[in-house]
Amino acid sequence: MPGAGRPELSGNRFAVTYHLIGTEAEAKVRAADICLEQTVELPEDLVMDENIRQGIFGQVVSFRPLEPGTFEAIISFAVETCGPELTQLLNVVFGNISLKPGIRVEYLDLPESLLQWFKGPRFGREGLRAWLGVPDRPLLCTALKPMGLSATEMAELAYRLALGGIDMIKDDHGLADQPFCRFEERVKRCAAAVDRANRQTGHRCIYMPNVTAPADQVVERALFAKSNGAGGLLISPGLTGLDIVRRIGEDNRIGLPIMSHPAFQGGFAIHPQSGLSHFVLFGQITRLAGADACIFPNYSGRFYFTRDECRRLSQGTVSPMGHIKPIFPTPAGGMSLEHVPEMREVYGREVIFLIGGGLHRHSPDLVENCRYFKSLVEENW
Amino acid sequence: MPGAGRPELSGNRFAVTYHLIGTEAEAKVRAADICLEQTVELPEDLVMDENIRQGIFGQVVSFRPLEPGTFEAIISFAVETCGPELTQLLNVVFGNISLKPGIRVEYLDLPESLLQWFKGPRFGREGLRAWLGVPDRPLLCTALKPMGLSATEMAELAYRLALGGIDMIKDDHGLADQPFCRFEERVKRCAAAVDRANRQTGHRCIYMPNVTAPADQVVERALFAKSNGAGGLLISPGLTGLDIVRRIGEDNRIGLPIMSHPAFQGGFAIHPQSGLSHFVLFGQITRLAGADACIFPNYSGRFYFTRDECRRLSQGTVSPMGHIKPIFPTPAGGMSLEHVPEMREVYGREVIFLIGGGLHRHSPDLVENCRYFKSLVEENW
Repeated sequence: MPGAGRPELSGNRFAVTYHLIGTEAEAKVRAADICLEQTVELPEDLVMDENIRQGIFGQVVSFRPLEPGTFEAIISFAVETCGPELTQLLNVVFGNISLKPGIRVEYLDLPESLLQWFKGPRFGREGLRAWLGVPDRPLLCTALKPMGLSATEMAELAYRLALGGIDMIKDDHGLADQPFCRFEERVKRCAAAVDRANRQTGHRCIYMPNVTAPADQVVERALFAKSNGAGGLLISPGLTGLDIVRRIGEDNRIGLPIMSHPAFQGGFAIHPQSGLSHFVLFGQITRLAGADACIFPNYSGRFYFTRDECRRLSQGTVSPMGHIKPIFPTPAGGMSLEHVPEMREVYGREVIFLIGGGLHRHSPDLVENCRYFKSLVEENW
Repeated sequence: MPGAGRPELSGNRFAVTYHLIGTEAEAKVRAADICLEQTVELPEDLVMDENIRQGIFGQVVSFRPLEPGTFEAIISFAVETCGPELTQLLNVVFGNISLKPGIRVEYLDLPESLLQWFKGPRFGREGLRAWLGVPDRPLLCTALKPMGLSATEMAELAYRLALGGIDMIKDDHGLADQPFCRFEERVKRCAAAVDRANRQTGHRCIYMPNVTAPADQVVERALFAKSNGAGGLLISPGLTGLDIVRRIGEDNRIGLPIMSHPAFQGGFAIHPQSGLSHFVLFGQITRLAGADACIFPNYSGRFYFTRDECRRLSQGTVSPMGHIKPIFPTPAGGMSLEHVPEMREVYGREVIFLIGGGLHRHSPDLVENCRYFKSLVEENW
């Protein structure tokens, strides 16, 4: 990009697959609009600079009909439009056009020239298995709830869950720093309780407190969690912003596995004709941010994702993305123990089963229920 | 909340108005579901603790039909479920249920017992008028674009815009820290250019760089901007998370007006039967976070907001919220100078008109175009 002291662009581009709703003519207009809206934000005739037109404008790489009223456009952008910033990558992919209906991001094709800027998950699937000492079966996760219990009560619950053989005990995503269950006290008590259970069982269960918090407290809470025996972290990037996941994931003082929670991400996920595909939102973007596991609503629970959406989502957690590791899909949201055998067909064994309330239903003995849960994944996988 | 060392709840509750889609029976089930989903995340029969049932469960305060297939439920929550955290307030209001279709947040009724935890906008409408020295007419804003220009070219553009009498010159929201226009160089050059113009005109134009950035760089960039002559800041909370707006707004070392940009917030805004109302998203929540002005797509531009939505949105920027100041609605997105006279009917004079590309169209002389823009708001307001 010569002239006026501008450095040359590398020529490296990344590509975004969009689904566009409308007639063919409308979809073509929309594709052309994305090329401008997501970059120069000016009508084409107001940008006469040939270097900007060639280098900065988005470019329609391909355009084809998918089904009546739906078209696929693949649009490429210069990697320099984002640079090493996840916030700006999201901005170029879907910033302004998130405000226009009938545009859905289906797939990101990110070259190594862009991926090099991101470390991705610290653990990923293999690392998390090593961290937990579970080489091959599905991993078991549950949540501390309900909101309203004191830290002492949460710790007692955590103790019993760990005793029953659960691998990962996370805070319910609504546990923050409420006066009835302060963050620091909860972390100390729950980590100690899980540790006590581990010494009895000889297993390695981890406690994962929720570090979703005000912007200036996420890192602080993650550090506190690490220093006080937590074995992982839970965070809701819809509430905190996605890039803080990268921030805490890259921090060597923390160095814990991260599980993401979908709270406040629904706007992008539940409308089939707009937003981000499950593959992109819960797979590609969450991996790029550096979560090691991604919670999402399972098809048979109390939310509305379909089985096919969950299957495709699951593919997004493992699809090739250069050096960015695959992560664990973590279906949840009203799962019961009865669902486990059937879910193997969709998720195989590379999955974390997250069962919260359902774990309290099988029998009055919570420890026994956990053992039963574990037995379901130890057989025939 | 006695028992097990839990402190008593204050009894203070805030209320959320939801619109629910479905039959009356479905909507009632949905309202009851919200009471649990947003708090204890357990089926009712699994929570036997009477203190949690009474204190922590959401409570349906009222339920009524609005039109066939749409019902209004007002649901209250204990203020302690959120505490002083904006992230957790958003979580209780709409965290998990953002993943369920047919639920829209229409209005937040926040008592002083909750509002006390938030400072809100540092400037607000009055403060921003004082900051700019413009007591009564609508404020004029434009954006530096297109992406691809060097910092030197952006500064030259800023100089001419300031010379023409624009009040606020913001970065285009796509300007981050790209190699062809680095953040620090841009801030220095543009702030200096605007200052040079101000010395010539005797007016006070401010330059507002975009501090939307990775999680660990927003504060740093805001501080850099402050130290290098910026007169305000632009940020896209959809990309960074909303709470960082509060963080930089409360920082006395920064102390600059903040303008929010709606990039990557569309998922919550464009579906009439789900998400957040414009009133809540661009009004109440943005004010609570502490922005002093809120950009949104105007009804006559290249986006799809209706005139009624914009009017209602505008009411959200000024509706009573205790000590939280009113902020400026900033309609934008393909506005032209021709739209200005007509927009007065909707927005009155308490508005910032943001015209980007349209400012380049009136004549080939950009300085002259700015003067004409200004003349439009100086007459008859």
